[in-house]
Amino acid sequence: MKITFIGLGIMGSRMATNLTENNVNLTVYNRTEIDNSLFKNKNVLVVNSLEEAVKEADIVFSMLSTPEAVEEVFFGKEKALNSMKQNAIWVDCSTVNPSFSIKAFQESKSRNIRFLDAPVAGSKPQAQNAELVFFVGGKKEVLTEVEPYLNYMGKKVLRIGEIGKGASFKMLVNIMLAQSMLIFSEAVLLGEKMGIDKDFLLGLLPNLVVSAPFTKFKAESIKNNNYDVQFPLEWMHKDLHLATLTAYEENQPLYLANITKEIYAEANKNGMGRLDFSAIFKHLEKVK
Amino acid sequence: MKITFIGLGIMGSRMATNLTENNVNLTVYNRTEIDNSLFKNKNVLVVNSLEEAVKEADIVFSMLSTPEAVEEVFFGKEKALNSMKQNAIWVDCSTVNPSFSIKAFQESKSRNIRFLDAPVAGSKPQAQNAELVFFVGGKKEVLTEVEPYLNYMGKKVLRIGEIGKGASFKMLVNIMLAQSMLIFSEAVLLGEKMGIDKDFLLGLLPNLVVSAPFTKFKAESIKNNNYDVQFPLEWMHKDLHLATLTAYEENQPLYLANITKEIYAEANKNGMGRLDFSAIFKHLEKVK
Amino acid sequence: MKITFIGLGIMGSRMATNLTENNVNLTVYNRTEIDNSLFKNKNVLVVNSLEEAVKEADIVFSMLSTPEAVEEVFFGKEKALNSMKQNAIWVDCSTVNPSFSIKAFQESKSRNIRFLDAPVAGSKPQAQNAELVFFVGGKKEVLTEVEPYLNYMGKKVLRIGEIGKGASFKMLVNIMLAQSMLIFSEAVLLGEKMGIDKDFLLGLLPNLVVSAPFTKFKAESIKNNNYDVQFPLEWMHKDLHLATLTAYEENQPLYLANITKEIYAEANKNGMGRLDFSAIFKHLEKVK
Amino acid sequence: MKITFIGLGIMGSRMATNLTENNVNLTVYNRTEIDNSLFKNKNVLVVNSLEEAVKEADIVFSMLSTPEAVEEVFFGKEKALNSMKQNAIWVDCSTVNPSFSIKAFQESKSRNIRFLDAPVAGSKPQAQNAELVFFVGGKKEVLTEVEPYLNYMGKKVLRIGEIGKGASFKMLVNIMLAQSMLIFSEAVLLGEKMGIDKDFLLGLLPNLVVSAPFTKFKAESIKNNNYDVQFPLEWMHKDLHLATLTAYEENQPLYLANITKEIYAEANKNGMGRLDFSAIFKHLEKVK
Repeated sequence: MKITFIGLGIMGSRMATNLTENNVNLTVYNRTEIDNSLFKNKNVLVVNSLEEAVKEADIVFSMLSTPEAVEEVFFGKEKALNSMKQNAIWVDCSTVNPSFSIKAFQESKSRNIRFLDAPVAGSKPQAQNAELVFFVGGKKEVLTEVEPYLNYMGKKVLRIGEIGKGASFKMLVNIMLAQSMLIFSEAVLLGEKMGIDKDFLLGLLPNLVVSAPFTKFKAESIKNNNYDVQFPLEWMHKDLHLATLTAYEENQPLYLANITKEIYAEANKNGMGRLDFSAIFKHLEKVK
Repeated sequence: MKITFIGLGIMGSRMATNLTENNVNLTVYNRTEIDNSLFKNKNVLVVNSLEEAVKEADIVFSMLSTPEAVEEVFFGKEKALNSMKQNAIWVDCSTVNPSFSIKAFQESKSRNIRFLDAPVAGSKPQAQNAELVFFVGGKKEVLTEVEPYLNYMGKKVLRIGEIGKGASFKMLVNIMLAQSMLIFSEAVLLGEKMGIDKDFLLGLLPNLVVSAPFTKFKAESIKNNNYDVQFPLEWMHKDLHLATLTAYEENQPLYLANITKEIYAEANKNGMGRLDFSAIFKHLEKVK
Repeated sequence: MKITFIGLGIMGSRMATNLTENNVNLTVYNRTEIDNSLFKNKNVLVVNSLEEAVKEADIVFSMLSTPEAVEEVFFGKEKALNSMKQNAIWVDCSTVNPSFSIKAFQESKSRNIRFLDAPVAGSKPQAQNAELVFFVGGKKEVLTEVEPYLNYMGKKVLRIGEIGKGASFKMLVNIMLAQSMLIFSEAVLLGEKMGIDKDFLLGLLPNLVVSAPFTKFKAESIKNNNYDVQFPLEWMHKDLHLATLTAYEENQPLYLANITKEIYAEANKNGMGRLDFSAIFKHLEKVK
Repeated sequence: MKITFIGLGIMGSRMATNLTENNVNLTVYNRTEIDNSLFKNKNVLVVNSLEEAVKEADIVFSMLSTPEAVEEVFFGKEKALNSMKQNAIWVDCSTVNPSFSIKAFQESKSRNIRFLDAPVAGSKPQAQNAELVFFVGGKKEVLTEVEPYLNYMGKKVLRIGEIGKGASFKMLVNIMLAQSMLIFSEAVLLGEKMGIDKDFLLGLLPNLVVSAPFTKFKAESIKNNNYDVQFPLEWMHKDLHLATLTAYEENQPLYLANITKEIYAEANKNGMGRLDFSAIFKHLEKVK
């Protein structure tokens, strides 16, 4: 099986590296030049042409930053889909909205390419340690062919449903992240006002069953006043927006996510969009 | 050391039982008659007089339903404090607001009784299995005397700070419970509308790092449409209210908890106050 | 000058009638058959063909229910624009979103038709009594030609700015309607709970400087439990949605409109979408 | 009839002046020294002793800043009630919460003093021009005796109901002020972002039926960036808080007022508490 990985950013480079460590016959491509030493001494072919990267591949994985980038590479300006083999499989791991995944599927189908949407839970450290969780939308039999490779890159593969359902589920996960981060932040700030030590709160609260476990890591960042980006606040704002659009279309009231969106909007307007989304704490804190 | 436990409801009876299993010299008392078989064959003295229950005790634990009940038993109508030995310790494990704990401390101090506020995280199963977590406010040296007994009833004892800080911290924990339950509910309902199976969502979401771990148990209840009370929705509404009062006093904006309070208010107005607070899911679901 | 009016619903039929009462040379057209007696003994030509209706017109007014209907009639399936004279003027009085008005302008411009967006404030009674207010977007010199006719149908003509600004301003007006209706409703319900008579509140509050004056009429409807539609709740929900989209695009936090949108969403989900938007009172009231 | 007026601040001094212009036999008293020239050449007795001020009075009006001040003067430290004649009438025009009015009534009753709560709508200019509106709680026959004097100071006297209902109604009025100011501010800011001129919006919106008429004056202040206090933002925050307390006690959901409270909380925390409450516009505007 010939495997290709497209998009070698923070996430993609680590995911691809984990494939090479499992004796996969791998070709990689990035839109801009990358540091070749990343894949030095690895069993991997680094190519500079998109066409060359995909034309022989049985499976093409992609991990790109936005739906716009995915469109451009696969069926917009650059049209990788046109160079792929009939019946090959494209697995898009990028975070996109559900309707985009359905469009990507249709573009693939019209060219006899099979498609899966497979966004991930996890960021840099999980990518590094092959501890990602994949949320997959698409046909079971296609997933069966792809699953061994996903398992090299992650610790769990969850088929959520048909095409687009991977992206739908990822949307839920992201709004829970945004909201959990916010209620955690408000609790810490109220605790401080009630006279409880901030570091004590940051140390204790995340370990209780009332807190989403990811807050452990964010609490460390807050302690160190370190908001280096893992997932940018402006993207979180966008994901909240997309979720409220979906809720509107589905006629489903969604109180907390709507208010949460406005608080992220304010932080974004205040210039925090490029920081990690945990900077919502910093935003709330600085109002004094 | 002579130990007395007052309040043998769902929580208290289990906590007292765990004391007896560690060879504690225990006296128990409940305001209304209890099933004596609970403590059959146990090394425990069941008494029917409050005065008799406390007069010899070195440490008195209490686990009652409301601040009003605590006041009535200890320094209101019944005045247990007046019957206690000088320098004895009263440990109140009931959930009350911080200002009530400070009042209880002052009433104790004026009678030369030492006091700790020590509310717990956990409900019936944690009480049963001695897996409670105690949040303690008060003097370290007093806690040192009491700690062995708390460890018989729980798995962790956390001193949060001075008098009232146990209750303050418990307030934070409860509003995080209320809000986490709500964002979880809204995510499940939106997921359903996007075409993902409800049971699948209830099975998967609570196991991800974005969900507060307690939602695992609540998800089971939702699956079974079982909202038997573990912690009543109307009490959660009250705790949200108390927290927003505190936030007002501290001049600390608290967006999500305020909106969450109104949604619980609506559920409460709709007659769900005596169900478990996880019935907020049922409330949101039935709007169709 | 030859004038044509397209769309003879509740609003349009009354607006057209007011034109006839000022000796305007008027042709009217409706997509579905109308009661001809409406214009009996009036100086007006009722035609059954869209092409015939517009081909001689110097000015074409339209008052249709949705952007989709406007598109279909003017540049979608039916293409009235293609039948219009060069340099004629199309004045769209329908309520649409700003980006749609810009699209309508571009479609017009490419066919050498001049365009104004001119949505109105007011409903059935204001249309009847020529008391509408027009919010106009587009060129001043075009408005100058059209203004006399707008004055036959309304009491005030306000040029807000360039193309699309009429629609933008109308969006602001509608979200203020939605929110004012809600704060009025919540105040009346709280007042009742505090023991003040409901009819007294409905009679007094709208006359104070703290209440938007339109609540006078809505208070009458509430008194009579009459929610016959003047402006449907589901359209108000949609306008709130469009406004929050715009706020997102402009990175402008908009707390109250977002929460208001969710409350209308709930009322809509509860089957009140086809009632007047003042039924938000009924929705809040019935929760008991 | 002998009339006494206590509290000669911005409001009280103007109200008292209007009494003198109607040949009322007036005695005035202020807790701190006042500029005597205020009442120069007027038919008025300025006294420096509270006891002297009230002991002969048939009716005592009070206009003080807070419930705490009213309590201190009338039945706390200074106990004016103890010096008043049996069967005299105390009319409290201060803005207080309903439960305080009931307390004031009970304190009065126990001393055979008759009581009315009579807070006003209007600020400095309305006080000056005798255009206040009085919201009165209490017995009709007592109001009948007092009404001529209220009419000298205002343009309308509305009996809302029994004791406390004047204060209750005033609470509704104030939260409508707070919320209307906020939705107006958010609309202007969104309008600006959509490319409509700010001064145009400030000039037009307040004159439409969708805007509370008081926004006309506030729009002028915003244009001039003048937030000199007429009603302080921190008091508005407090009134929102009191209203949400009442809503909690009444089990009445109150979404918008709760969120509005948090936005005022944030402005207050940002140091705007002593500005006019219309500075909520400035607060929202400065987030950029």
